Amino acid sequence: MSAQTKYGLIGSSGRLGSEVKNVFAENNFDLVFEFDVNGEKRSVAGEVPEVLIDCSLPEVFSKSVKYAIEFNVPFIIATTGLGGDQINELKKLALEVPVVQSYNYSIGIQILLKLTELANEKLAGWDVEICETHHRFKKDKPSGTAKMIKNIFGNREVNISSLRLGNIAGDHTVSFGGLGEVLSISHSATSRRTFAEGILNSAVFVKNKKNGFYSFSDVVFGK
Amino acid sequence: MSAQTKYGLIGSSGRLGSEVKNVFAENNFDLVFEFDVNGEKRSVAGEVPEVLIDCSLPEVFSKSVKYAIEFNVPFIIATTGLGGDQINELKKLALEVPVVQSYNYSIGIQILLKLTELANEKLAGWDVEICETHHRFKKDKPSGTAKMIKNIFGNREVNISSLRLGNIAGDHTVSFGGLGEVLSISHSATSRRTFAEGILNSAVFVKNKKNGFYSFSDVVFGK
Amino acid sequence: MSAQTKYGLIGSSGRLGSEVKNVFAENNFDLVFEFDVNGEKRSVAGEVPEVLIDCSLPEVFSKSVKYAIEFNVPFIIATTGLGGDQINELKKLALEVPVVQSYNYSIGIQILLKLTELANEKLAGWDVEICETHHRFKKDKPSGTAKMIKNIFGNREVNISSLRLGNIAGDHTVSFGGLGEVLSISHSATSRRTFAEGILNSAVFVKNKKNGFYSFSDVVFGK
Amino acid sequence: MSAQTKYGLIGSSGRLGSEVKNVFAENNFDLVFEFDVNGEKRSVAGEVPEVLIDCSLPEVFSKSVKYAIEFNVPFIIATTGLGGDQINELKKLALEVPVVQSYNYSIGIQILLKLTELANEKLAGWDVEICETHHRFKKDKPSGTAKMIKNIFGNREVNISSLRLGNIAGDHTVSFGGLGEVLSISHSATSRRTFAEGILNSAVFVKNKKNGFYSFSDVVFGK
Repeated sequence: MSAQTKYGLIGSSGRLGSEVKNVFAENNFDLVFEFDVNGEKRSVAGEVPEVLIDCSLPEVFSKSVKYAIEFNVPFIIATTGLGGDQINELKKLALEVPVVQSYNYSIGIQILLKLTELANEKLAGWDVEICETHHRFKKDKPSGTAKMIKNIFGNREVNISSLRLGNIAGDHTVSFGGLGEVLSISHSATSRRTFAEGILNSAVFVKNKKNGFYSFSDVVFGK
Repeated sequence: MSAQTKYGLIGSSGRLGSEVKNVFAENNFDLVFEFDVNGEKRSVAGEVPEVLIDCSLPEVFSKSVKYAIEFNVPFIIATTGLGGDQINELKKLALEVPVVQSYNYSIGIQILLKLTELANEKLAGWDVEICETHHRFKKDKPSGTAKMIKNIFGNREVNISSLRLGNIAGDHTVSFGGLGEVLSISHSATSRRTFAEGILNSAVFVKNKKNGFYSFSDVVFGK
Repeated sequence: MSAQTKYGLIGSSGRLGSEVKNVFAENNFDLVFEFDVNGEKRSVAGEVPEVLIDCSLPEVFSKSVKYAIEFNVPFIIATTGLGGDQINELKKLALEVPVVQSYNYSIGIQILLKLTELANEKLAGWDVEICETHHRFKKDKPSGTAKMIKNIFGNREVNISSLRLGNIAGDHTVSFGGLGEVLSISHSATSRRTFAEGILNSAVFVKNKKNGFYSFSDVVFGK
Repeated sequence: MSAQTKYGLIGSSGRLGSEVKNVFAENNFDLVFEFDVNGEKRSVAGEVPEVLIDCSLPEVFSKSVKYAIEFNVPFIIATTGLGGDQINELKKLALEVPVVQSYNYSIGIQILLKLTELANEKLAGWDVEICETHHRFKKDKPSGTAKMIKNIFGNREVNISSLRLGNIAGDHTVSFGGLGEVLSISHSATSRRTFAEGILNSAVFVKNKKNGFYSFSDVVFGK
């Protein structure tokens, strides 16, 4: 049986934080430090985390970085809506410890992006359509992920269709159409657990890494 | 073995006309009269059609009606782009013989429209999305069929997404989204043959009908 | 503002029970009586429920019926795996109060069944395929719902394809294929909430009903 | 304006042969030699093809090879159902001229196979499902292409679902399911034209190639 890895979690009471707790517990990770925006902090006496996860909000950012420096361990951050200054601060931190930063820790979306790139190289001249479906409460159209897909096609004009239906967590499809065939790559998120698994993979990835600034794409495809 | 039915076909050299010939031949119909926009006319000596089909263009319309009156038989017209005057002329003709008129003779689309009506009655308050995909050469957005679907929802604001991909003949999907489930009704046309089959069904439908003006919905669901 | 309806809930700590609590609270229902398999019971002093919901297990069945008789109110039961004796006991209870019994309170599935019936009437001779996808933990193939769909086609041989993928809650598709077109009706369950909403609809349905034994199909389509 | 390429076509009256004629004519290829199983042969006086295409049947095989040797030009063969001896004969021919041999000249299917390989490398441990849909006249289950997809997973047990519906030309989907997300890669053939385009690409590919035996995968991804 392999030894447990000790980890710390910032933003542990949020929806993503709760999923991280479940997934990490199932995978032989031991939670020894918790910090939450509500000011609650819990640490297991005498234990220091070997990796620190941040699933919190931009407001907590500076405190998170402070802890990463204090523990001097790999840092994985899933916080969305960071500003340019904060990204720069992470890059400075990455000179000391390995840092993984991404706005989307779904493995499947990383694969979809990679497959789309490859298909696009081979299917030049085919029509392209991007279609995304999300729950009715999502206000922005198109989704950030749909924009990431569109970026693959550079300056090319690519249509994005946005559907809003019930409480769908998030579906994305890229379709390539030639005269006589259609090739589609689709991703459907069915639960928040997928993001927690991406963070788990990132934690395994950074364990033996030296300092450096990594994206989740590096975790999935290597760097 | 049942007796053959004699039929006449206007616009017999067009793409839809050719499909009609195939489908009718397979179903015990005997072509005894042909007329084409190119001026070619062929009739089997001594034979009069028992039903007359028109798959031609608006330019031929008055000649088609002339033949329907001459033969005094049921008339099925698939010509698109008719004006109000021409529809009125058909209604006048319908006082004498049964007339079936539609812009879309796909049975599946008629079923989709009916199922959408029924679902809408039961799923008030659910989100609705319409999505249509057609070949890259289709210029108009959204498709006429998508508009027919939207009409079912009356004044309600319903989003239509239009995708243009390769040479897809025509796909339509209506989706209803509740908090926890999605119900979708989809139709995909895979060949022009489907329209020829709808015309065949119309020919069988009108055989024992009296005069009257019928839609293809009447053919499928009875009147 | 409309008055609140008082309701009781058996099996309130289960996964479905929790969803029922949320959905009912959002819809102006007031929980005045709770009973759970763990033996915990809670009732608001002086309050009697106007409708009683059972989301528990067969083991609790006789106790549930006892409470229904005691309160003498409409009874809605979602418990699965009931035996013939228990169904008979419910029918006896239905002589006194309205009873709604179903193994699946998803509105969308009821609609799918109805639409499939209608499509089948009109598409005789078309090919039929049923396809269902569920999470990898589901052992039985095909799903009970797929069998319900198949029953619509009577003795006809209809193929069911069963896919097992990740943690998909439950997708069902019936496809009708003619020569030139395909019509599909699809349902996708995205959360347990959908079943709670079906129970809510049942509660509204029975409020002014007399005694009688009802299915969830009666709730959706009237009886 | 670029110069025309002269080509020869064996099996020119078949369904695939007719599509090849259309696609090649649209792409600046000039048909100077035709041979058909019916014994008809046509050659433009004084012209020799620069590339020879075979879309015929195994019965014509030895005659096709004879012509390839006579013209001493690149040879592209789409004939299905070749035996081991015939493949060996092609490999011998490939010592003299470039030969492209494949049972499926759809570019999209080649891309699907490549994307599936890549996804599989990254999604080890995810569930896999293959689903194919073809017209009702297709007797074999599963399709040859579905088997090609399954081969990617080696000895792993992978379920293939086969649906038979109307006159669908051929749909294939590979789905990967994790706990929280599903990734799918789908291909839909909408017309025979797609295979003619693959043959066109092969003709362009071999033009400046030396002798050698190539697959259609080599054409799409390089060799």
